[in-house]
Amino acid sequence: MLEPERILRLERDAVVLLDQRRLPLEEVEVECRTAAEVADAIRTMVVRGAPAIGVAAAYGLALAASKGEDLAEADHVLRESRPTAINLAWALDEMRDDPSYEHAKRIHSDEVERCRRMAAHTAELLAPGTRALTHCNAGGLATGGYGSAVGALIAAWERGVLERVWVDETRPLLQGARLTAWELETASIPHAVIADSAAASLMAAGDVDCVITGADRIAANGDTANKIGTYSLAVLARHHGLPMYVVAPSTTVDLRTADGAAIPIEERDPSEITARFAARNPAFDVTPAELVTAIVTEAGVHRAPYGASLAGAVAA
Amino acid sequence: MLEPERILRLERDAVVLLDQRRLPLEEVEVECRTAAEVADAIRTMVVRGAPAIGVAAAYGLALAASKGEDLAEADHVLRESRPTAINLAWALDEMRDDPSYEHAKRIHSDEVERCRRMAAHTAELLAPGTRALTHCNAGGLATGGYGSAVGALIAAWERGVLERVWVDETRPLLQGARLTAWELETASIPHAVIADSAAASLMAAGDVDCVITGADRIAANGDTANKIGTYSLAVLARHHGLPMYVVAPSTTVDLRTADGAAIPIEERDPSEITARFAARNPAFDVTPAELVTAIVTEAGVHRAPYGASLAGAVAA
Repeated sequence: MLEPERILRLERDAVVLLDQRRLPLEEVEVECRTAAEVADAIRTMVVRGAPAIGVAAAYGLALAASKGEDLAEADHVLRESRPTAINLAWALDEMRDDPSYEHAKRIHSDEVERCRRMAAHTAELLAPGTRALTHCNAGGLATGGYGSAVGALIAAWERGVLERVWVDETRPLLQGARLTAWELETASIPHAVIADSAAASLMAAGDVDCVITGADRIAANGDTANKIGTYSLAVLARHHGLPMYVVAPSTTVDLRTADGAAIPIEERDPSEITARFAARNPAFDVTPAELVTAIVTEAGVHRAPYGASLAGAVAA
Repeated sequence: MLEPERILRLERDAVVLLDQRRLPLEEVEVECRTAAEVADAIRTMVVRGAPAIGVAAAYGLALAASKGEDLAEADHVLRESRPTAINLAWALDEMRDDPSYEHAKRIHSDEVERCRRMAAHTAELLAPGTRALTHCNAGGLATGGYGSAVGALIAAWERGVLERVWVDETRPLLQGARLTAWELETASIPHAVIADSAAASLMAAGDVDCVITGADRIAANGDTANKIGTYSLAVLARHHGLPMYVVAPSTTVDLRTADGAAIPIEERDPSEITARFAARNPAFDVTPAELVTAIVTEAGVHRAPYGASLAGAVAA
């Protein structure tokens, strides 16, 4: 497993981030010396993944506090860096009354601990011989350590119930091909990268047993925003009678967002898709709760109707 | 419109192909001086698209005949160059009794003429203001001129019923982003490239009115093989209540193939997806006839049950 401190950490005068844009070809660290630099690293996806950007924001605020920066301004610039993941706002809200290094560090270790609990819950849902399909990267890189969906796959592998993983390459930024495949290779879990559009025919051929993804924000009713393409997988899973599991910590649940229609969907630069032609580049989509078989948080396995159950997880 | 001779032509001692791998960045021609070189160009996708590779094979056989090559060997090497598109076998069967330049040229011009007729049939299916989604490239480049699905979009645009086109980029080889966007730009049709995985959320948002694709082989029952990702779109279209139109000439219908299960699906080199990790790279998928709203050939609009209707189109 990738050590949490290797993914992101707070040093005396900098937040140090493993540059996820350059993985797996090279492991390079980016040092951010102000909250604004941390915000910029979040915006440009040096660090990505909902829980990990929450942790990065917490470190960014702790850095600002230790340097005597204007904390209201630091909070603002960090909060606005990306719109969809709610963990960013959650972590900054948490830090408000105690913007200390120790507090940020505890937020980080708590997220990793939540991942381990979610992983155990999810592994229990899987039958022996499971061939799981995942999208984007919901690994240690995305959570600050261990991973949500990938953490669940690791736990399932260790219990001997996982046979293999199909990894959507995840256009346009290829987080699946670059990051998830790298993490699975590190964990020695059999896997193969596929074009996102090949998932349907693998399902039709009977080569997929379930879909497991992370989430960037889960509304109070269970509607789930995640990397663009997740909703597509949910429809395809339903058509093929396969379960669709969303694995995410309670910090990803936003009880103040009633449903998916209220989740802001980031539109990123069309140049990520093509430099030459007109393009549209929504970075996330929303999967209606109706298409989700179960949502797994560290509190356990939630099934529809999600309302009370998710509220309980957040309150715990 | 791209002139058919610019896409592929037979000269006195060579088949000349526009290198579709290098479009749209540069327009380079590849000269093939033997049937084996034409087969190699088909295999490496210098020329691609079911009708276009049929035409290329016909030119390859005519070239072999004019040079006194062994025609049985030329037929064999061309026939084996790619497995899924049936047009290849169809064109070679056609050429057997008359492997002349004039015959190959007529096969070419007939395919373009079929496209124009299919386009007119398809345009009549579309309501004013249609926002169509297409996958891969079923344009003039794929058919030797005018195009099947893209031809239909051009006809719909000229009739004033097309509002815009969403172009799946079509991983791994990006035929949508590279070739279809280029053809639509040439035709001045409003369009935007999207990640393949974004199609579902555009449908959910109500931004798509229909899906229009070409085909590489249509089985006798209407099951349709086309570029990987087409089946995914068909499931998504069904889920969202949208029509799924397949536009292809009767030369793409293979009455000797009973259904989709009997269509050979080419697996291409995993390095097209990733040079670093294990990958699977099926190049086509099969869409069950049950998910296809209508198949349009030059003979007209076919609806389920497809059997007699497709047989009639082939016999015509």
